[in-house]
Amino acid sequence: MLNQNYIDMCGQKSVIRELFAYGSERAKEIGYENVFDYSLGNPSVPVPETFTREMIRLLQDENPVALHGYSPSLGIDSVREDVATSLNIRFDMHYEKKDIFMVSGAAGAIAHAARAVTVPGDEILTFAPYFPEYQPYIAATGAVLKVVPADVSTFQINFDAFLDLLNEKVMAVLINTPNNPSGIVYSTGTIDKLAMILTEKEKEFGHPIYILSDEPYREIVFHDVDAPFVAAHYNHTLTCYSFSKSLSLPGERIGYIAVNPACEDSALLVDMFGQISRGIGHNCPPSIIQLAVAKTLYDTADLSVYEQNKNILYTELTKMGFDIVEPGGTFYMFPKALEEDAVAFSNQAKELDLLLVPSNSFGVTGHFRISYCIPTEKVERSIPAFQKLADRYLA
Amino acid sequence: MLNQNYIDMCGQKSVIRELFAYGSERAKEIGYENVFDYSLGNPSVPVPETFTREMIRLLQDENPVALHGYSPSLGIDSVREDVATSLNIRFDMHYEKKDIFMVSGAAGAIAHAARAVTVPGDEILTFAPYFPEYQPYIAATGAVLKVVPADVSTFQINFDAFLDLLNEKVMAVLINTPNNPSGIVYSTGTIDKLAMILTEKEKEFGHPIYILSDEPYREIVFHDVDAPFVAAHYNHTLTCYSFSKSLSLPGERIGYIAVNPACEDSALLVDMFGQISRGIGHNCPPSIIQLAVAKTLYDTADLSVYEQNKNILYTELTKMGFDIVEPGGTFYMFPKALEEDAVAFSNQAKELDLLLVPSNSFGVTGHFRISYCIPTEKVERSIPAFQKLADRYLA
Repeated sequence: MLNQNYIDMCGQKSVIRELFAYGSERAKEIGYENVFDYSLGNPSVPVPETFTREMIRLLQDENPVALHGYSPSLGIDSVREDVATSLNIRFDMHYEKKDIFMVSGAAGAIAHAARAVTVPGDEILTFAPYFPEYQPYIAATGAVLKVVPADVSTFQINFDAFLDLLNEKVMAVLINTPNNPSGIVYSTGTIDKLAMILTEKEKEFGHPIYILSDEPYREIVFHDVDAPFVAAHYNHTLTCYSFSKSLSLPGERIGYIAVNPACEDSALLVDMFGQISRGIGHNCPPSIIQLAVAKTLYDTADLSVYEQNKNILYTELTKMGFDIVEPGGTFYMFPKALEEDAVAFSNQAKELDLLLVPSNSFGVTGHFRISYCIPTEKVERSIPAFQKLADRYLA
Repeated sequence: MLNQNYIDMCGQKSVIRELFAYGSERAKEIGYENVFDYSLGNPSVPVPETFTREMIRLLQDENPVALHGYSPSLGIDSVREDVATSLNIRFDMHYEKKDIFMVSGAAGAIAHAARAVTVPGDEILTFAPYFPEYQPYIAATGAVLKVVPADVSTFQINFDAFLDLLNEKVMAVLINTPNNPSGIVYSTGTIDKLAMILTEKEKEFGHPIYILSDEPYREIVFHDVDAPFVAAHYNHTLTCYSFSKSLSLPGERIGYIAVNPACEDSALLVDMFGQISRGIGHNCPPSIIQLAVAKTLYDTADLSVYEQNKNILYTELTKMGFDIVEPGGTFYMFPKALEEDAVAFSNQAKELDLLLVPSNSFGVTGHFRISYCIPTEKVERSIPAFQKLADRYLA
C-alpha cells in the first residue's frame, strides 16, 4: 500500500512549473526569443571564476581519496570555520565553527531548523507573500505552518495580523528577506519591531521563539537599500543560507545554517541538526562543493544585471499604470494585477507570450510575480508586450 | 522548546566513530603507521580517472549557467536515461528513464523509498547483522524497523525467524547484499526463497511487500561469487544504489533508486519520491556530479585491493583459530570474537592498537567487524597484532 499523502501531492501541479513547461512548448512554435518567460527564479549569470578555478584545482591537485571522502556530519571543519569568519567580518558577529552547519541548500536548511525547534503540532508562522514550498517543507516536519496576511501597501510585516496569530504554540517564525516573491527587503525598523515583539512573547509564553531566517537572496540587494543582517537584531535566529543565487549554482546544493552564538544551546542545536540528517537522508552537502565555496565566501556572481532589469521594469510598468512596491533586492517583482482575478490576468498575459505567475500560491490575491532573471535585452524587448497587456485594461 | 528526540540522539555515541576518534588520538602518540584502524568503512582507492576528467571537462567546456542550474526534481533526464540503459545492459533488465530517481546517496534513497511504501505504524523488516544507521533512517519515517535475528553459521537469511516476524503490517523488507558488516553476498537460492515467501504473503495479506535493496557494495564482489541482481528476481524491488563505494566518492552524495518496471505504478512511485523530497529538504543530488557519474556507469575504482586484503585476513585469522564466514564481497569481515562479550574483546584488541568494532550495534552478539579498506601493506603488518590477540585467548 503506497502512502496516499504523497500520491495526492503528485496531483497538485505547480503553477510555476506549468507555466515554464508551457513556455518551453511555445518556444518550439514561435522561437525561444519570442517567449517572454518570467516564470522561473533561475539565476541567469555565470558562477564566479574563482569557484570554477578552485574546483579544477581541487580535482587536479588534491588526493582524490581525501577530496571525495565523507564529510563530517556537521560539515568539513575548515569550511565551517571559514563561513564563521566570513560572517563575523561582514556582519560584525561572533560565530565560531561550532555554530555553523553545512547543508544542501536552503530547503535542506529549513528541513533541519524547523525539526530542531518544534515537535509535531507546534506552529510556525510565516508572512505573505511567501515562497509556496514552505507548505510542504513544514508539513513534513509535523508542525503547522500558518500564514500572516500581507501588508500589500509595503510588503513589510503586517504586525496587527501577526499579533492575532501569535500564540503560545508558535515556536518559530519563518521569514524571507530579501523576499520571494515581492523583492522587498525588511527594513531595520521592521526587524527591530519583530524582535521586540518576539522577546516580549518569549517571556509571556515561557519558551524561545526562533526566527528561521531564509536568506538565499541576501547578496542581491540594490543600491542604498537598508538590509539588516537579521541575526544581529535577535539572538534566537537560525540563519538558513544558500549559495544558489549569490554564486549562480542552484543545482549544486550548498548552503549552511548559522546559529547565533548568543542563542543559548547554539552548539547543541548544531549537534541536533546532525542527528536530524540521519532521519531525512541528508548526510552532508558534497565535499568538493563545500571546499570550493569556502574559497568564494567574499565573492558573488555579477549580480548587477538584476538591478538593471528591475530599474527598467519598475520604471516602464509604473509609467503604464501598474501599481508596484519597488523591490529592494532579489530578481522578483510583485505588481498588482489589472483585474482582481490573478489567474485570469496571467492568462491574458499568456496570450501575448508574456509568462507571469499569478499571486494566489504566494498567499496574496490580485497580484503577479515577475522573475526578471533573464537577459536585459529580452527585458527591453518585452516592454511592448506589457504595454499591450496594460492597454487591454487601461486604454 | 527544542525537540527532545534529537537531543536524546546527541547523547548516543556511535561506537564506530568513537573507535575512529580514539585511533586518531592514538596515532598522534605512537604514529599513524602503528595504529591498525579497522573501524571505518571509507574507500581507500582513488576515484576512476574518467570521473575526474569528465568533471574538469564540464567545468572548462560547458556553459556554467546550464551546468550549475537546477536539476529537475527527479534527476537530470539524460542521466536517468543513461542509468536505465546501463542497468539493462548489465543485468538484462527493462528500465526506462521514468523508473529512475537520482538521489544523494543510499541514505537518501532509503529515506525516499521507505516513506513511499509505508505510513506511520507500518513495519519494515531487516536482517541481522545490519547497518546500525537503519534504525534512525526508518524511525524518522514513522514506520517501525524490526530486526530478524541472524543465521550466524552462514549470514544468509534466517528464514524461520523471518516467518515468525512477517505479519500483515510489514510493507517492506530492507536487505543489504553484499552486506555490511558480514561481507556476505546473498545467494540466488536465498533471494529466490525470499521472493517466493514474499509473493505468497502478498497474496495472503492483500498488499505488496517491497524489497528495499540497499546496494552500495554491488560492484565489490569477489571472484566466482554468486551475486544475483535482486530486482531480476522479484518485481516489487526498489533498488537503492550509491556510487560511494564503487567510485570511491562517498563525500559527493550520489546514487539512485531504480524501481523495477515490472512493479505496477513504477512511474507513480518515482513521482512520489519527487514529492517526498520537498518535505525532507532533498532537492536533487548536485547537478555536476550527476553529469559526471553518467560517464562512469561502466567503470569502477580499482577495487581489487579489497579482495587481496580479504584473502590475507581470512587465511591468516582462520589459521590462528578465528571462526569466520568467508566474505563474498564488500570490504568487511565479521568473525566470531574469542569471548562472548564483544565489547570486552574489542577492548583487548585496542590494547594492541588493533581497532575492531564490537558486533552489538549490528544486531548480533559475540562478533566483531573488520573494515579492511586500508593499504595491503598495513594489513600485512597487522597480522602479528591479531596473533597476539589470539594468543591471549587460545595459547
